[in-house]
Amino acid sequence: MVQHTTLATDRLAAQREFRTELIDSGVLVATSVDGLYQRSAVFESVVRGLERRVSAEGADRYEPLLFFPPVLPRDVFVRSDYLRSFPDLTGSVDTFVGDDRDHAELLQALDSGADWTQYLTPAEVMLCSAACHPLYPSLTGTLPVGGRRMEVQGFCFRHEPSIDPARMQVFRQHEFVAVGDPEVCVAHREEWLERALRILGGLGLAVRKVVANDPFFGRAGRMLAANQRDTALKYEIVCPITSAEFPTAIASGNYHIDHFGGPFSIRTADGDTAHSACIGFGMERITLALLKTHGLDPQCWPSTVRTQLAL
Amino acid sequence: MVQHTTLATDRLAAQREFRTELIDSGVLVATSVDGLYQRSAVFESVVRGLERRVSAEGADRYEPLLFFPPVLPRDVFVRSDYLRSFPDLTGSVDTFVGDDRDHAELLQALDSGADWTQYLTPAEVMLCSAACHPLYPSLTGTLPVGGRRMEVQGFCFRHEPSIDPARMQVFRQHEFVAVGDPEVCVAHREEWLERALRILGGLGLAVRKVVANDPFFGRAGRMLAANQRDTALKYEIVCPITSAEFPTAIASGNYHIDHFGGPFSIRTADGDTAHSACIGFGMERITLALLKTHGLDPQCWPSTVRTQLAL
Repeated sequence: MVQHTTLATDRLAAQREFRTELIDSGVLVATSVDGLYQRSAVFESVVRGLERRVSAEGADRYEPLLFFPPVLPRDVFVRSDYLRSFPDLTGSVDTFVGDDRDHAELLQALDSGADWTQYLTPAEVMLCSAACHPLYPSLTGTLPVGGRRMEVQGFCFRHEPSIDPARMQVFRQHEFVAVGDPEVCVAHREEWLERALRILGGLGLAVRKVVANDPFFGRAGRMLAANQRDTALKYEIVCPITSAEFPTAIASGNYHIDHFGGPFSIRTADGDTAHSACIGFGMERITLALLKTHGLDPQCWPSTVRTQLAL
Repeated sequence: MVQHTTLATDRLAAQREFRTELIDSGVLVATSVDGLYQRSAVFESVVRGLERRVSAEGADRYEPLLFFPPVLPRDVFVRSDYLRSFPDLTGSVDTFVGDDRDHAELLQALDSGADWTQYLTPAEVMLCSAACHPLYPSLTGTLPVGGRRMEVQGFCFRHEPSIDPARMQVFRQHEFVAVGDPEVCVAHREEWLERALRILGGLGLAVRKVVANDPFFGRAGRMLAANQRDTALKYEIVCPITSAEFPTAIASGNYHIDHFGGPFSIRTADGDTAHSACIGFGMERITLALLKTHGLDPQCWPSTVRTQLAL
């Protein structure tokens, strides 16, 4: 127990120290909200170098890259069923649809320190939880033989305030998604996990593959988490950032079975409910792993790394 | 009246037609929510070309470019006073902070088609309304002599569902901001309005400068709008996209007086409340103006335009 506590304290101290280094060097700018950062041009140049690097790996094998905005239609979010597993991470968007009188009441509440958000109404959109969620409604219907393969990038929001710089509330995922038969999907996940290990290892990161351990919510969530581990549907590629004992997941490969094919009515050419799988690169986390591994100034990184990222 | 109605109908038809062209050509992908689009790699390459072009224009005169995430701290949003003028455009973020029992009730509401959002709680963040809002809290205190000049880019959210492709709910602004004495701020706005006319005109866009006419909310808003026009604090650079009679604002220069300096306690070297001014380039709108003016395939644009955008 003593050792466990020491480990946890060390871990927190290491997270805080790296965060301070990132902020003092100007690579990230802190805000008043934990886990919410402004990115320097230096940070962004690494993200874009990574984008080119992983995108080149999928070239010609995938449909053209799509960039998704940070919000998605509410009905798509609901059908993704994210609320069942991770309600605590979601971001629902409210707006004001009232008249002059309602507005006057809202401002009165605001000025008197009361809860002004009671005058708001749910909008048609939610913040994205995973980059591939907005993709599935566009696949409703029957797939061509062999399924489809897509490449997408988007901002995700996860409400988990933390001082760990690798646990941001807003970050980008760059994903490669396959939909089709189970065989197509499992092969996609396996190929990309190997490819991701090669790409990230080639950038000098000490990566390895582990079975994923997602933070499913609550009592029911503990069963879902155990089931996820037992069935090994999702793997993570982890890398030490602020802790060797608790490496950070910087990419993941996830076989969804019919989790999206069902609700979004996606069918294979044979008429079966389509399966899907995705590999997601966490652009901010990989950038942080590179900054931790090679130093805070990308101009001083090994030339092989700089070349691969076209920095 | 007949002519007015005809104009409005023509305008709507032209917006719908351009939207259809953009979607049919794959430049944008529609979602089930009006004003919310997925961007193709082609669209994004123009946005990034524009980013390089305008950023080069500010080089060495501005502090290094910062990229802001699409959400900002709620207290910063409140202090920006956006709720007073544009409540109907805002996006407030809710999340779930309950326990297992609350979660069960949320899911029961969801499954029975009831309002599940009643189980959510306002989070510490809001969606950004303008790219420069997250900047001001970092300037609290006393400025150096001559003030400061910053360059920022960020996603903005404005809840105004529309079939006009130039009225997106989510878009990027690239801004140059000055804070300091009134003279510094007015000069900044004037210089940049001229610079923006030159940059955008140089890209073949039929731009001109007009006094801005923001859609302030409600009865009180009509007075604010009249005041904005009378004092000419904000100018827009407009360009025909789907209508010559109703050109679209694709950039704007705004002198805020002490609208931000006051609430964020920013002081000049002399101890006065700092003024501020910004020029904002609407990245999606400029891209749409280019696509409308030069055609849907940037590979076929005039070489002078392609060279300037490094396409």
